Amino acid sequence: MRIGLGQFDAVVGDLEGNAERMREIYGQAVEKKVDLLVFPELAVCSYPPEDLLLKKHFLDDNRKVVEKLATNCTDATIVVGFADHYRGKTYNAAGVLRNGRLANVYRKGLLPNEGVFDEPRYFEPGNKPMVITLDDLNIAITICRDIWDIEWLAKFLKNAGQIDTLLNISASPFHLGKIRTREDIVSDCATRLKCPVGYCNLVGGQDELIFDGRSMFTDAAGKIVAMARAFEDDLLIADITKKNKTVHIEPQPNSSGADIGLLEEAYLALVLGTKDYVRKNGFSKVLIGLSGGIDSAITAAIAVAALGAENVTGITMPSKFNSAETISDAERCAKNLGIKFMTIPIGSVLEQFNGSLEKVDGWNSKGLAYENLQARIRGTILMSLSNQFDALVLTTGNKSEIAVGYTTLYGDTAGGFAVIKDVFKTMVYKLAKYINEINSREIIPKSVIDRVPTAELRPNQKDSDSLPEYDLLDKILKGYVEEDKSAQQLIDEGLPKEAVSRVIRMVDRNEYKRRQSPPGVKITPKAFGRDRRLPITNRYNHSNGLK
Amino acid sequence: MRIGLGQFDAVVGDLEGNAERMREIYGQAVEKKVDLLVFPELAVCSYPPEDLLLKKHFLDDNRKVVEKLATNCTDATIVVGFADHYRGKTYNAAGVLRNGRLANVYRKGLLPNEGVFDEPRYFEPGNKPMVITLDDLNIAITICRDIWDIEWLAKFLKNAGQIDTLLNISASPFHLGKIRTREDIVSDCATRLKCPVGYCNLVGGQDELIFDGRSMFTDAAGKIVAMARAFEDDLLIADITKKNKTVHIEPQPNSSGADIGLLEEAYLALVLGTKDYVRKNGFSKVLIGLSGGIDSAITAAIAVAALGAENVTGITMPSKFNSAETISDAERCAKNLGIKFMTIPIGSVLEQFNGSLEKVDGWNSKGLAYENLQARIRGTILMSLSNQFDALVLTTGNKSEIAVGYTTLYGDTAGGFAVIKDVFKTMVYKLAKYINEINSREIIPKSVIDRVPTAELRPNQKDSDSLPEYDLLDKILKGYVEEDKSAQQLIDEGLPKEAVSRVIRMVDRNEYKRRQSPPGVKITPKAFGRDRRLPITNRYNHSNGLK
Repeated sequence: MRIGLGQFDAVVGDLEGNAERMREIYGQAVEKKVDLLVFPELAVCSYPPEDLLLKKHFLDDNRKVVEKLATNCTDATIVVGFADHYRGKTYNAAGVLRNGRLANVYRKGLLPNEGVFDEPRYFEPGNKPMVITLDDLNIAITICRDIWDIEWLAKFLKNAGQIDTLLNISASPFHLGKIRTREDIVSDCATRLKCPVGYCNLVGGQDELIFDGRSMFTDAAGKIVAMARAFEDDLLIADITKKNKTVHIEPQPNSSGADIGLLEEAYLALVLGTKDYVRKNGFSKVLIGLSGGIDSAITAAIAVAALGAENVTGITMPSKFNSAETISDAERCAKNLGIKFMTIPIGSVLEQFNGSLEKVDGWNSKGLAYENLQARIRGTILMSLSNQFDALVLTTGNKSEIAVGYTTLYGDTAGGFAVIKDVFKTMVYKLAKYINEINSREIIPKSVIDRVPTAELRPNQKDSDSLPEYDLLDKILKGYVEEDKSAQQLIDEGLPKEAVSRVIRMVDRNEYKRRQSPPGVKITPKAFGRDRRLPITNRYNHSNGLK
Repeated sequence: MRIGLGQFDAVVGDLEGNAERMREIYGQAVEKKVDLLVFPELAVCSYPPEDLLLKKHFLDDNRKVVEKLATNCTDATIVVGFADHYRGKTYNAAGVLRNGRLANVYRKGLLPNEGVFDEPRYFEPGNKPMVITLDDLNIAITICRDIWDIEWLAKFLKNAGQIDTLLNISASPFHLGKIRTREDIVSDCATRLKCPVGYCNLVGGQDELIFDGRSMFTDAAGKIVAMARAFEDDLLIADITKKNKTVHIEPQPNSSGADIGLLEEAYLALVLGTKDYVRKNGFSKVLIGLSGGIDSAITAAIAVAALGAENVTGITMPSKFNSAETISDAERCAKNLGIKFMTIPIGSVLEQFNGSLEKVDGWNSKGLAYENLQARIRGTILMSLSNQFDALVLTTGNKSEIAVGYTTLYGDTAGGFAVIKDVFKTMVYKLAKYINEINSREIIPKSVIDRVPTAELRPNQKDSDSLPEYDLLDKILKGYVEEDKSAQQLIDEGLPKEAVSRVIRMVDRNEYKRRQSPPGVKITPKAFGRDRRLPITNRYNHSNGLK
C-alpha cells in the first residue's frame, strides 16, 4: 500500500482555501498512485484556530468542508485533521474519508496545555483508539501529543489488536533544534509499537508560530527512512507491505530533504514567518526603518528573502545624533539588497516638537523623554507611510533588548510584525554573517557588523552604557526567561550577582512594553508571547533572599 | 463559633505585603473574638499569578510565607489560599493554619479553563475533600469553582460525613450583574448541602480583572444573611452554633453592604481598576488627553475618583479641525474636576511633519494617513510628558470603537491603561449622566453629552460617517463579541444584514490593533483581552452562506 504525507501551509480560518489546496495535493497523490493520503492536524481550519472554536457556526462550516472533501476525493483514502463537534462537545479529530464520505473519526486523547498550547480550553479528550484496515494492514491513527507520552500510548493501544503501521497527524510548532526531539519521539514510537510510523506535520507561519513540516517515515526498527522538506509544502511517499506478518516500508527514491543546521533553521523560520504573516494578512509590501545598525540590516535581508526586493522599502530617518557612517551604512545595505531607499531627516520635526514641549515647565531637552521622542517621531513617520501606501511596517528589535525594555514604546516598537523579536543579539551577529555567506557577497556591510552597538539617541551613546555586554546579558536572559531559573541558580552557575539582579528587574518591569508590542516569529523554546504569560502588575522579587 | 471572612485587596507576587495585610486583619479579627478567619483563594500570591507558578523558587517562597503566617497567627484558626507544590505537582490550595503550623491542605478539585481562566495550565486537580472539625462543627473547605458544579460537589462530598458548615474561598472575577449568579450559586450550595455557607472573595484590580469582594454568609436554607462591602476590604463576621443537630447562623448586626445597581457597579469597578493598576505599578500621577468629547471626560472623572484631582492632568491638543466648543468643553471639564489643565496645540508640529512627508511621492495631506498622523502626534506628546514626569497615560477609547478599530494605533491607543475599553459607547452616555448625578452637579458638561460624536480629524467629521449609529453598533457587537453569535443568527434576530456583515468584518480585521493596545478594566462577560483569544491571521468569513 502506498501512503502519502501531504504537508502544506494552511491558513487559519480559510476553510475553503485549505480544502482547495488539499484537493490539489490529492490530485498529485492520485497521479502517483497513493492509496492513503494523510494531511496534518486540524488541516481544515489550520492550527491554532483559538476562540474560533467556540463559535458553533465555525464548527459547522468546518465539518461541511470535510464532508465535501470526502465527496471530491474518492480515489484514495484520506486522513485529515478537523474540529469535530459532537453532542455538544468539541474534539481535535482525524477524519477518515473513504468512498465519498466521512467514514471514521478519531479523537485526540492527549491535549497539551503548556507553553503555547491551550487545547483543553477548547477540546474534550477522546478515549477510544482508532485502527482502520486497508489492504490487510491495520493502521492506527493518532494526533500530535498522543505519541509524546509513549507509556500512555502503549496503554491506550493495548487492546486495539495488531498494529501494522501508525500514523500521526501533527501541528508541532517549531523551535531551534526541536526536530531532533521530534525524530526521537517518532522513532521511539516505532520501536515501542514495532511498526513503521508515518508522521505528517503542518507547514507555515501563524501569527507567532512556525510549523516546519519535515514529515517523516520510520521503519519498524525506528530508523527514519524518509523526511519531507523543511518549511515548505511537500508530498512524502512510501510503500508499506506485509509479508509473513513482517511489515516492510520502502520510501520513494530521493524523497528526503537535506539536513540543515541551526543557523539555517533560524533563517528559514524567520523568512517563512515573515512571508506568511505579511501575505496571509493581505499585504504585499513592507517598510523598514534602516538605522545603519545590524538589527534593521538583517530584518531587511530577511524581508527581501521573504517577499522579494521589489516589495521592501528601507527608510532612514537621521537626526543630529546619527554619525555619517551609520547613515551611509543604511544606504549601502539598501543598495546591497536592491531595495527602494528613502531618507527622511527628523531634525526639523524634532525641533518643532521639542519647542512645543519646552513650554511645559520641567521639560528636559537632554533627558530620556527627549531620546524617546526621537524614536516616536520615527515610528510615526513609518506608520504614516504605512497608512498611505498600504505597506506593513516591520520592526527591528531583537530579543535581548525587548527582554530588558531597551526600546521605545510606539517608537521602535511601532509596526505590524517584529521579525527578530525572538533572536538574541548574539545570534543576530551570527545571522548577519550567515546571510553574507549564503549570498556569497557582502549584504550586511562589515562596518555594520563591527560597529559597537548604539541607539544613537544622544551623543556618543553606547548600548553598554545601560546594559551588560550582550554575551553576559544573553546568558542571563536564557536562564531566566527560557529556563525559569531563579536569581540564586544563575549566580550559583557563576553569573555575576549584580548583573543578574539588575537584568531580572528590568525584564519584569518591562512586561507592559512587551504586551503592546507586535507579534513576531518564535524560534526559541520560550518566546515572549503566548509562551510566557506573566502579569504586568507583579511585585514578586526574584532576588528575595539572595545569598 | 465565630467565623470571619477577611476579603482584601492582594497584590500579585507581593508575598510579604499580602501576608502583612493578613496579619493586620488577623489582629482585628482576634479583637472581635473570631475563632476561624478565612482569606480568599490564592490570597498569599493573589490571583492570577500566571506563569510565576512555573517558577520553583516562587512556589517555595509562597510556602514559606504561609508557614510564617501560621507561626504569627496562633489565636485563631486560619484558612488561606496558596499555591501548594507537592511531589512535583502544583495545586490551587487552601491551607488550614492551626497551633502555629500549616496543619491541613485542601486542593481544589475543579479547575476552570474557559474565559479568562487558565488553571489547568498550572494546577493538578485535587481529589480529596477536606472537612475539619472546630468546636463540634464539621466544616468542609472548598475553593471557588468547586461549588459552581453542584452535582459534582455533592458527589465529591458524599462520603465526607456530616457537614455543618461549608466554606468557599474564591477569586471570582467581576462582570456587570455577576453577583446575582454568584448569590444563586452560593445559595444553591447551602440548600443542597443543608448547611450554612461562608463565601470569601478577593478584592482588587489585577491588570484587566476586577475582584469585587462581596463575601457572604447564607443560612442552611440558602438565604443570604450577610454580605460584605463591594470593591473594598472588609471583615464579615457571623456566629455559627449547633444545637440538637441543627446548625444556626447569626451574623453580626449591620454587617451587610448596600445593594448596588448596574451603573454603580460599572463605575466602582472602573474606579477600583484604575486605582489599583496605577498604584500597584508604582505610579501616583496620570495624564489624560482631553478632547472635549465624552470618552475622555468620563475617563478623567473616573481617574479623579480613583486617584484624587491633584494626581490627574488633562491635556488638550487642538488642531485646526477642533471646534472652539470642544476646546472650551475640555477646559470646562477640567475645571469641573479641579484637575491641572494644559493646552499644547499640534498645528505647528503637524505642519512640519506633513512638510517632511509631502516630499514622499504619493503622500496625501487630506487622507486617512493624515488623520492618523494627528492622533499619533497627540500620542507622542502624551508619552513624552509621561516619560518626563513619570505619570501614566490613561487612554480614552471605548469598547465600541476599539471593537471596530475606529482608533489610531500609537495615537489615541497610546498609553498605559485603557480605563473604558470594555464600556460600550451607549453605556458611556449613561455613565456620564450617572457621574453628574452622584456629584450632584455638572461634572461632564451637557454640551459634551449632547454633541454628535466626532473624532475631529477632518472638517465636519462625524462618527456616523464611518460607523452605524451606536445603538445598532452596540447591539451587533454584544451579539457577535460577547455571545459568539453568527451573522445569520444576528440577522434572524432582526438586525440589518449589511450592517451586521460590515461590523463583523471590521471586528475581525482589527484584531491586530487590539493586540497592541493597553490593558483596561473588564466589566462585561467577555472583554477584549485574555477572555477572547482570536488569531490575528484569520481568514474565516463569518458571513459565509448568509441567507
